[in-house]
Amino acid sequence: MSDLLPDPRSGAGTNLDRWYDTYAARTAGLAASEVRALFAVASRPEVVSLAGGMPYVRAIPRELIATAFDRLLLEDAPAALQYGSGQGTPRLREHILEVMALEGIHASADDVVTTTGSQQAIDLVTKLFIDPGDVVLAEGPSYVGALGVFRSYQAEVVHVPLDADGLIPEALEAAIATQKAAGRHIKFLYTVPNFHNPAGVTLSAERRPRIVQICSDAGVLIVEDNPYGLLWFDAPPPPPLQTLNPDGVVYLGSFSKTFAPGFRVGWAVAPHAVKEKLVLAAESAILSPSTFSHYLISEYLETVDWQGQIATFRDVYRERRDAILAALAKYLPDLTWNVPDGGFYVWVGLPDELHSKQMLPRAVRELVAYTPGTGFYADGQGGRQMRLSFCYPTPAEIEVGVQRLAAVVNGELELVRSFRGTGSLTPSTPEHSVTTPPPDLR
Amino acid sequence: MSDLLPDPRSGAGTNLDRWYDTYAARTAGLAASEVRALFAVASRPEVVSLAGGMPYVRAIPRELIATAFDRLLLEDAPAALQYGSGQGTPRLREHILEVMALEGIHASADDVVTTTGSQQAIDLVTKLFIDPGDVVLAEGPSYVGALGVFRSYQAEVVHVPLDADGLIPEALEAAIATQKAAGRHIKFLYTVPNFHNPAGVTLSAERRPRIVQICSDAGVLIVEDNPYGLLWFDAPPPPPLQTLNPDGVVYLGSFSKTFAPGFRVGWAVAPHAVKEKLVLAAESAILSPSTFSHYLISEYLETVDWQGQIATFRDVYRERRDAILAALAKYLPDLTWNVPDGGFYVWVGLPDELHSKQMLPRAVRELVAYTPGTGFYADGQGGRQMRLSFCYPTPAEIEVGVQRLAAVVNGELELVRSFRGTGSLTPSTPEHSVTTPPPDLR
Repeated sequence: MSDLLPDPRSGAGTNLDRWYDTYAARTAGLAASEVRALFAVASRPEVVSLAGGMPYVRAIPRELIATAFDRLLLEDAPAALQYGSGQGTPRLREHILEVMALEGIHASADDVVTTTGSQQAIDLVTKLFIDPGDVVLAEGPSYVGALGVFRSYQAEVVHVPLDADGLIPEALEAAIATQKAAGRHIKFLYTVPNFHNPAGVTLSAERRPRIVQICSDAGVLIVEDNPYGLLWFDAPPPPPLQTLNPDGVVYLGSFSKTFAPGFRVGWAVAPHAVKEKLVLAAESAILSPSTFSHYLISEYLETVDWQGQIATFRDVYRERRDAILAALAKYLPDLTWNVPDGGFYVWVGLPDELHSKQMLPRAVRELVAYTPGTGFYADGQGGRQMRLSFCYPTPAEIEVGVQRLAAVVNGELELVRSFRGTGSLTPSTPEHSVTTPPPDLR
Repeated sequence: MSDLLPDPRSGAGTNLDRWYDTYAARTAGLAASEVRALFAVASRPEVVSLAGGMPYVRAIPRELIATAFDRLLLEDAPAALQYGSGQGTPRLREHILEVMALEGIHASADDVVTTTGSQQAIDLVTKLFIDPGDVVLAEGPSYVGALGVFRSYQAEVVHVPLDADGLIPEALEAAIATQKAAGRHIKFLYTVPNFHNPAGVTLSAERRPRIVQICSDAGVLIVEDNPYGLLWFDAPPPPPLQTLNPDGVVYLGSFSKTFAPGFRVGWAVAPHAVKEKLVLAAESAILSPSTFSHYLISEYLETVDWQGQIATFRDVYRERRDAILAALAKYLPDLTWNVPDGGFYVWVGLPDELHSKQMLPRAVRELVAYTPGTGFYADGQGGRQMRLSFCYPTPAEIEVGVQRLAAVVNGELELVRSFRGTGSLTPSTPEHSVTTPPPDLR
């Protein structure tokens, strides 16, 4: 049917896009994500990946899954194979209340909307609230996957700095004032209060009511993303912001880190009217979530010692946190980093002469991967930082990875310093790009 | 923390929405879907539901699933529990090629993007292409779930009529000309060529190249939604539009009807550059699809006689199609309907005096449910039609359901005709609302 192809440029073998002129304006904001590219790198067995945030699911005994599946098949196969409610099965939503109660959240199953991972909850909340040009406040740095969503709905991200105690209240107040003075519409604050991705810090108990009060006073909704809260190492983090003002917070949770990401089940708890709209948005996007996944997770939660499994995860990740801190102290004592009390990440500061994104191709050649800090800012910051994930590699692999990283850092430093003054190796200005991966990782 | 609640109206127990003024413009287009409401009705056991499009998953022997699961657990548990590629597992995308080959599509696994049901593919394509006010051409009637997506991105839907041979080429040409003359941007034609939802008709072989040529000439992308193509009763439908011009068609497929919807796995096949953007949009929305579902479906396709299972589905649905046609002929001989050659739906015309949406509450009281035609139009048409689904109830239940429906139709007709001339029971003007459910079904 070659007569159906009026434009020969559109034939196979070229990369010209016949539909180039027909995309929506928002599509210009879509770019290949570093997360995706880094998954590809991490899957090469010779590379020690300190890049991706993949949980160590091998810590889950497979018989736990088998038991859950057997019960599902015996009791609920026809329902589990069918379409379900757009909000998620009532039974799983009841189970989610039990999970959240561990962190102090008391809600009704009617307040819960399940999503395809909490990523979809970020997407749906953004779709509900963001008109092009609206402002989202987010920590600087912030979760790369959320920044991608915000950009895909043409939001303007305004970063608010954090320190060792998390988001800085005074900086939040200042950012709100500046944006309001400029006549811009702030729609929500996106925040990861516990074991922050990528910064590894936790919002202090003292700051939590202040953050909530500032947002409440300013009429700014809080989107509280809490995938790591149960993965503390020594003591639980302070209660979620949601407990301080349920009407002012959309709270996001996930089974991806406390059970397994392969089922893609997360959830949102939202004020009643927002919840109603979230359900409609979810139905529009996917009709209903995976009923099969919901039944399987419900069986898992009813059948096995899932809290014991979370304790196992804590032990696994604590050991790996200790391993990465020890390796940093041993091999890269001149760098700076934080000491995370839970979660998956250490945020590492580089010497001024280096640029994390420019250094990455060399690191990959040396068989170690990390995530450059630039991915976690919407405005080109982050060149002096990198995120190291300690969740997936074993302690022994972590030591090897940091050792390789030290060789890369020291080699780059030596190179830069030996050319100092010539300007030829001065790092260039960081690009204003959230997620463009480095060429070696495309 | 009651001092954190500056507005007492926002407290629990009221339905006032503190965030009412902060939603995006597009959020006004979200409304409760009839599909969702009808799921609730259909789940009441005393109601014969001819409403929802739920496949008859009890036809799947549960040992088929068990076999697939056992292999998954033995061979691939850690990978199946992990995050995966945003595009879907390479193995499942290879399997999808085998499924599509049955309908004549020859593609590369690289052209396939998996989605959370094909509903998500509709959502992502719309997100990529639609700016507010852009035009989507769609059959009149069209799939209610697609209309909801189009509205959620502020598209203008322009309906193109169909007849017993599917979409009418001359009407498509006229619609394109009218829209272009009005200076509007037509972004794509959304079409269900096989066993149309809701109209039950199939686009004829003669019309297929004409439709493709018209769109190609006009620079209009085709979004071809084909969830039912393999569920033919006597002979396969003509080859998909995609085979006639792969560069001009985004083709959508699904495992929901040929296997089970509970896994929420669908896919899109798109021209290369569009596919690249679809992957990015999918990653932004959900990071990655359910790896577990992908592994399970791959095992199912490798382990069992899945084509035999599809043949079983054909037999089941053919028998039910025959049952509903026989019941219509027996109990409602004065109505009009089409004879579907596959799929799930019969499209029934009502006498002029009746209105399908207004009649529905009475039908539900009489313990039979259907979908009013109004749900399938963006412009208030459809009051004289209803969709009857024959996929889920047994033949015996179908006969009971149609018998009850006949009592409702005849009772309403008698009422209307006995009041003729008074005007008091004249059906009111249909509302311009895609998806507002009738009050009894909320």
